Amino acid sequence: MNYDNNNVFAKILRGELPSFKIYEDDKTYAIMDIMPQTKGHLLVLTKEPAPTFFDLSVEGAQACMATAKKIAPVLMKVTGADGLVVSQFNHECAGQTVFHVHYHLVPHYIGEKVDKHAHKPGNMEEIKALAEILAKELAAI
Amino acid sequence: MNYDNNNVFAKILRGELPSFKIYEDDKTYAIMDIMPQTKGHLLVLTKEPAPTFFDLSVEGAQACMATAKKIAPVLMKVTGADGLVVSQFNHECAGQTVFHVHYHLVPHYIGEKVDKHAHKPGNMEEIKALAEILAKELAAI
Repeated sequence: MNYDNNNVFAKILRGELPSFKIYEDDKTYAIMDIMPQTKGHLLVLTKEPAPTFFDLSVEGAQACMATAKKIAPVLMKVTGADGLVVSQFNHECAGQTVFHVHYHLVPHYIGEKVDKHAHKPGNMEEIKALAEILAKELAAI
Repeated sequence: MNYDNNNVFAKILRGELPSFKIYEDDKTYAIMDIMPQTKGHLLVLTKEPAPTFFDLSVEGAQACMATAKKIAPVLMKVTGADGLVVSQFNHECAGQTVFHVHYHLVPHYIGEKVDKHAHKPGNMEEIKALAEILAKELAAI
């Protein structure tokens, strides 16, 4: 699949669009989802120009896992979540909305509903505040 | 979280329960989901005794990604699927039903619905036939 250099995550990676960044290394970039399904929903982006999992290198997928492993326990601690879904969607019929590989980390809370994917914007002040706490905790590891 | 040595995937890995295996290497073991959400739904199991993502080593998570990367294009080719979801659930409130880390590979098809997770058994003959094709294709790589 061809990569569109003007997709929203490409622009975020180039600094042309703002994001609530919580972590970055040489292969990955993690940001808050601004249409969160639950409190703390965040995204681990590859830095590769890969539209789908099929286009991503094995090393690229593994770098995303290393970053997810780093973030997940901090996310649980900071949000007080009871569970976590790690997911990655490929192609429109499977729910992919931005054609740049990203892994969703979606905290789950007992008794609380999970919003639909990419459904409505969250509370930006709350997201920003959470991003700052997560970024600070991750920087201290 | 403590690991229960008698969970269903532990038993499958020890050969005490049957499974439709399609692939195995030193760190992972891939089988068909017998309660598939769609045709071709399969699982990549870690061989580590890790109940959740939080208990899994980074290397264990990365080995699962390498196996998923190997299987995914074959799965798409064999099933003719239009999309793919890769997902991994942690703790009951997030949909985890077996406390041994496994990644779901769920093919999606345009216009076809996706069944609920761990909802009802599939057609075992169809699953077996698909497993045999996938195993053969993967062995030829």
